[in-house]
Amino acid sequence: MLEQNSSQRHRVVIVGGGFGGLYAAQAFRNAPVEVTLIDKRNFHLFQPLLYQVATGSISPADISSPLRLVLRNHRNVRVVLDKVVDIDPVQKLVILPDGTLPYDTLVVATGVSHHYFGNDEWKTHAPGLKTIEDALEMRRRIYTAFEEAEKEADPEQRRAWLTFAIVGGGPTGVELAGAIAEIAHGALKHDFHHIDPGTTKILLIEGLDRVLPPYPPELSAKAAEDLNRLGVTVCTQTMVTNIADGAIAVRAGESEETIAAKTILWAAGVKASAMGKVLHDRTEVELDRAGRVIVAPDLSIPNYPDIFVIGDLANYPHQGDRPLPGVAPVAMQEGQYVAKLVKKRLAGEVLPPFRYSDYGSLAVIGQNSAVVDLGFVKLSGIIAWFIWVFAHIYYLIEFDNKAIVMMQWAWNYFTRGRGARLITGEGSPKGLRAEVPAADVQKQDVPTTQAVS
Amino acid sequence: MLEQNSSQRHRVVIVGGGFGGLYAAQAFRNAPVEVTLIDKRNFHLFQPLLYQVATGSISPADISSPLRLVLRNHRNVRVVLDKVVDIDPVQKLVILPDGTLPYDTLVVATGVSHHYFGNDEWKTHAPGLKTIEDALEMRRRIYTAFEEAEKEADPEQRRAWLTFAIVGGGPTGVELAGAIAEIAHGALKHDFHHIDPGTTKILLIEGLDRVLPPYPPELSAKAAEDLNRLGVTVCTQTMVTNIADGAIAVRAGESEETIAAKTILWAAGVKASAMGKVLHDRTEVELDRAGRVIVAPDLSIPNYPDIFVIGDLANYPHQGDRPLPGVAPVAMQEGQYVAKLVKKRLAGEVLPPFRYSDYGSLAVIGQNSAVVDLGFVKLSGIIAWFIWVFAHIYYLIEFDNKAIVMMQWAWNYFTRGRGARLITGEGSPKGLRAEVPAADVQKQDVPTTQAVS
Repeated sequence: MLEQNSSQRHRVVIVGGGFGGLYAAQAFRNAPVEVTLIDKRNFHLFQPLLYQVATGSISPADISSPLRLVLRNHRNVRVVLDKVVDIDPVQKLVILPDGTLPYDTLVVATGVSHHYFGNDEWKTHAPGLKTIEDALEMRRRIYTAFEEAEKEADPEQRRAWLTFAIVGGGPTGVELAGAIAEIAHGALKHDFHHIDPGTTKILLIEGLDRVLPPYPPELSAKAAEDLNRLGVTVCTQTMVTNIADGAIAVRAGESEETIAAKTILWAAGVKASAMGKVLHDRTEVELDRAGRVIVAPDLSIPNYPDIFVIGDLANYPHQGDRPLPGVAPVAMQEGQYVAKLVKKRLAGEVLPPFRYSDYGSLAVIGQNSAVVDLGFVKLSGIIAWFIWVFAHIYYLIEFDNKAIVMMQWAWNYFTRGRGARLITGEGSPKGLRAEVPAADVQKQDVPTTQAVS
Repeated sequence: MLEQNSSQRHRVVIVGGGFGGLYAAQAFRNAPVEVTLIDKRNFHLFQPLLYQVATGSISPADISSPLRLVLRNHRNVRVVLDKVVDIDPVQKLVILPDGTLPYDTLVVATGVSHHYFGNDEWKTHAPGLKTIEDALEMRRRIYTAFEEAEKEADPEQRRAWLTFAIVGGGPTGVELAGAIAEIAHGALKHDFHHIDPGTTKILLIEGLDRVLPPYPPELSAKAAEDLNRLGVTVCTQTMVTNIADGAIAVRAGESEETIAAKTILWAAGVKASAMGKVLHDRTEVELDRAGRVIVAPDLSIPNYPDIFVIGDLANYPHQGDRPLPGVAPVAMQEGQYVAKLVKKRLAGEVLPPFRYSDYGSLAVIGQNSAVVDLGFVKLSGIIAWFIWVFAHIYYLIEFDNKAIVMMQWAWNYFTRGRGARLITGEGSPKGLRAEVPAADVQKQDVPTTQAVS
């Protein structure tokens, strides 16, 4: 049971400590409000680098900042490690498993999770990448595959262990494919006696006609070229029709094929977190196809000016042809906007609608290879890669001095090492062996593009 | 199914990639033998620093070196990720789940695991510290306890969340107790609104009359003094009679007590890994009370001169009053000795019995505080601490340049930070709530000293 805030100050409750929630909490610094930040986890996760944990470059703690540490000097913010199960917008209460919490302003920033387009049974065979646990599971599967290949005497099975299929050609898919190619052709090159990791087949499967669909076509082409150079087979206009243990069925035009691949990774779709539905049920706010909340121009919910939705969970349709993308800078700016709006309101002032300032998009393919769209200029190759590195270090060290990550990167850069390639966790390597033969795979069409981000 | 070694060279199979197995494998460098190193894990774990993972100072990868990376330049060593289920000493075969592997020389170095003195039901309530997974579970429990205390309104429950009991006053228990005290009084000092982590109660429970029993009494006294200064309550001559969820029952002399403690950590006993029993069943070799293999003066098994047991799994009674301790330097020297012996044998020469060169013992209590027994001199305080730091860095960077750990330590030293304090893994904080009231605790005597190490 949580104690209620006894002060008379305006009570802000923020749900979710991602980029949106954390930037909102920080932006209330020195404001005459009492902020409660609720998160299920005790740390903020720097999600843009999660793929580096999944591929064994860095450790989970390198991209995780304890929320209490980040907010230590914000005396008007308290952190509560808990889960919000419901809200009561009339009584203005947030419902927790063990109690309730009153709010004057509610900011919901709970993000999105994976979406398998109705095929939730694929999840076991093709894990996605949203949490630290997801990343460690991917890491376990990737490195276990090489170990199993080394032990496998049957050439067909060995080939399947050395085949990686990544579903979804958005930034996450491109990053994963590029990193796995570097692992196979670089870090592990000399480490095995029976297999040549250089023969690894990496398939990047995308439903649309190019990778990185939200980027300008010339950057997509450059990314595909760099991926090919790294040894990734880019399969565009290719639909996934089924996924089973050790096999993925795809269709490209008229041709259908089932590929034996022991490691299948999901980077294709996202759907709104459960708070989307809670808000819909309680306020009748409209949701989009992915379950995201369609917000008003000031990021509030229509008819509920004291409830805001920000970050990946929000669909902001008031700027440009399509909703704002589900990327960190949007969430950060939205968080800061909401804090500013609440402070203005308390001072009896108003603020014009939210407007996202787009400083550009970045996606990394591999070492010395990235694409950057700054609007006025489009870059690729090593210059783009350096911009990517510095942009990420800049944001990473903002919260919690992560100088260690820089050192680790510098070390990896010169050694091409993957020092964090531990196989840890529950399942043993045996747990990954195919139990369903590839022939049992059923067909069904689904898109493979990242629907939201 | 593993392919058999087709060469005519002497085949050495090493089971276990800890200090013993890895040093043996490395010592065969350039020898005319084919070495196969079998381990369940794909990395060597630097166990002496595992408590720093458990307490959130460093990340698992910082103390784990991929075996293939460490052995990359040893062309006569191949690494197999697998589990040995049995051996056939007559046919000279190692039995794996999917096949067999012939050997000419077998080196068994599979170490020890926790021992609850017949009370295996305590395991859930008082986890031990041997693997990366164990360390992450301890870390989860330690940091979850502070979060639950922050949310708890009932003062008695809150007190239980802020009470930590560590069972066993050997080096691991002392390290854990000291580190938790530093977390409570240092890293978390300013991070909570409702609780004062400075009121945390840390109990170190030891059955004998002093902590660090294998050390000289004056160093034990110094360690107890430093622990007290850090805020640890040292309870010597105290037996644990039962452990339940959220409660530990102890007896000191005539007085019995049940203490409400939500976090109970086990550092008290170890027992031989399963290979001890396998060797006993197949060779009739004698085991000690902890299940360790009593080896011959050359570390072989009586009547089986081609089977060696080294490291924590071996009981070597041929030097001093009691068996050699279960510490890394013993395992390293044993591994090197066996490699040398095999090489001599192949050259038709002999080697005198194994003799451990004891360069001293180190145990750390906290920042600037350690005890060092170098035989000719006994040190404590900051000088001992620096010796401890440099000894550990020296061995750590030997395998795989872990410069990162040094940076992290330097950073932590000046900031007193615990950057790796993530709560990750399966169980939610709720999962830790007491289900058995303290009153249900049954009594039973068990020793609390570390029986082996």
